[in-house]
Amino acid sequence: MRPRGEAFAPSNIALCKYWGKRDEELNLPTNPSLSVSLGNLGSHTVVAPLEGHRDVVVLNNREIAPDSPFALRVSAYLDLVRPDAHFSFLVETANTVPTGAGVASSASGFAALAKALNALFGWGLSRRELSVLARLGSGSACRSFGTGFVEWTMGRRRDGLDSYGRVLREKWPGLRLGLVRISQQAKAVGSRAGMKRTVETSALYEVWPRKARRDVREMKEAIRTRDFAMLGRIAENNALAMHGTMLAAWPPLLYFSEGTLAVLRNVWELRAEGIPVFCTLDAGPNPILLFETGLEKVVREAFPELEVVAPFETHPGTPGKA
Amino acid sequence: MRPRGEAFAPSNIALCKYWGKRDEELNLPTNPSLSVSLGNLGSHTVVAPLEGHRDVVVLNNREIAPDSPFALRVSAYLDLVRPDAHFSFLVETANTVPTGAGVASSASGFAALAKALNALFGWGLSRRELSVLARLGSGSACRSFGTGFVEWTMGRRRDGLDSYGRVLREKWPGLRLGLVRISQQAKAVGSRAGMKRTVETSALYEVWPRKARRDVREMKEAIRTRDFAMLGRIAENNALAMHGTMLAAWPPLLYFSEGTLAVLRNVWELRAEGIPVFCTLDAGPNPILLFETGLEKVVREAFPELEVVAPFETHPGTPGKA
Repeated sequence: MRPRGEAFAPSNIALCKYWGKRDEELNLPTNPSLSVSLGNLGSHTVVAPLEGHRDVVVLNNREIAPDSPFALRVSAYLDLVRPDAHFSFLVETANTVPTGAGVASSASGFAALAKALNALFGWGLSRRELSVLARLGSGSACRSFGTGFVEWTMGRRRDGLDSYGRVLREKWPGLRLGLVRISQQAKAVGSRAGMKRTVETSALYEVWPRKARRDVREMKEAIRTRDFAMLGRIAENNALAMHGTMLAAWPPLLYFSEGTLAVLRNVWELRAEGIPVFCTLDAGPNPILLFETGLEKVVREAFPELEVVAPFETHPGTPGKA
Repeated sequence: MRPRGEAFAPSNIALCKYWGKRDEELNLPTNPSLSVSLGNLGSHTVVAPLEGHRDVVVLNNREIAPDSPFALRVSAYLDLVRPDAHFSFLVETANTVPTGAGVASSASGFAALAKALNALFGWGLSRRELSVLARLGSGSACRSFGTGFVEWTMGRRRDGLDSYGRVLREKWPGLRLGLVRISQQAKAVGSRAGMKRTVETSALYEVWPRKARRDVREMKEAIRTRDFAMLGRIAENNALAMHGTMLAAWPPLLYFSEGTLAVLRNVWELRAEGIPVFCTLDAGPNPILLFETGLEKVVREAFPELEVVAPFETHPGTPGKA
């Protein structure tokens, strides 16, 4: 049998966002961030050596054009571990994340690829080392390890070896995330470029690293004390502040669509009625709702097309536990 | 004939916004701001003594209910100058500002009222003194004096006597403002309350006073050198940064409506095609376009319902010259 490496990694949703790099090559952040892993939703990846002069990347059973940005990005990443210039890879990835729901697949994709490479080559890397390796592909990939809450400690070293995802001990079985599919438009500016533009041009960005550090600290306190209103407030405020720094960039960055406004208004109306539901929003138009299990029915009434994720409820035998 | 005072004051559109107070009573700002007056668009006000136990406020030929927030605000302002508790006023105001176009009428309203009171009582106040008096009614009213560009110097004194609007010498006859009427929803949070909430809760606000000072300084440079691209960029960036500070407030403040998004996207598409059009946006959903006279036709094609204002083109005999 041909050698192969196979792995699953979950997607993750940042409750305190990663926004801004201090090193563009190594994906080292200007601030710590904190996410929750999505259990069974993520990427399943198989990697194998390939005879031939170029890598082949298959995503959800379709070969990706080798000159597409996605394939080029994967090949550039594989260059980091390629034994020699004539060594090619076959990478097959399948995402279990619903498309168009605002859940980034690059995080789980690079995390799964790092784990699959580790399996293929038998490196025996620790979870921390895998997290650092995945980070080189996509910053937030370093948080796509383990179940539950993960903190990305920003680190201080220039080589980035202390900048990785660390799973928090605390569990929160009743926590729910709600994915809302809204009308999609192609993202005008990708998050990598948006982040760079914000750091370079937004006057408001100056406050961000300090605010983000405080938010992560307080979020951990909210998790420790199981204070949902505090967790929700910090998450929503953190995300909207990130979007605030973008608005002040030049040219301006605005990821809100009409659908985003409708969801935000809906969330704020629910809160005005005393229903503790909050939302977070990556650099894209799709808000993700945050609530506790007891409110699922109420939230579903307000958002009939909601897809509910229970991040702490993974079962043995499912990929989320792998 | 009964004594009466009569005056006109123009509306003004801030190109660098007033956002945040250091004194809530005296409407003293945390930052300087810079506006352009709207020529003939504004408020025409007549004030006269009235026998009776209460003030009567007539707006656009309709009496305002005496217990409405608007009438109460006017009466509270009149208390500052009321000769004795038994003295009542009749205030008749007519706005020439198109309603629902995002142009605040409180600025021109309080400026015209201050001038009308000055005429009624024969105080002989200077323009600077009138500006200070108007500011006590509504902060931005202190900029509604004179034609063209007006800088509100924030001042340092605790009594606010050095915080007033000062007309800049420079004229820019070809400057055009475009009012776009978009679908209205009632403003959830007024600007007075929104400002206060932002100052008190938004982490991003920390940068605002410094950024605003720099923007005013650079805007004056853009005006001096007649650099439209610079004026437009500073104005749009300043407005969006203000909205960025609001997004990071808690509870969040979002004044954008679906119509706002459509106008912003339209403006950005025009710029992407090389057409120098920019916009500004107060604490409300209506963007106001900025462009130069030669582009009026092109901009009208993109915004068929545009109402164009030429702030420097007031003619003798029209109220704008008063």
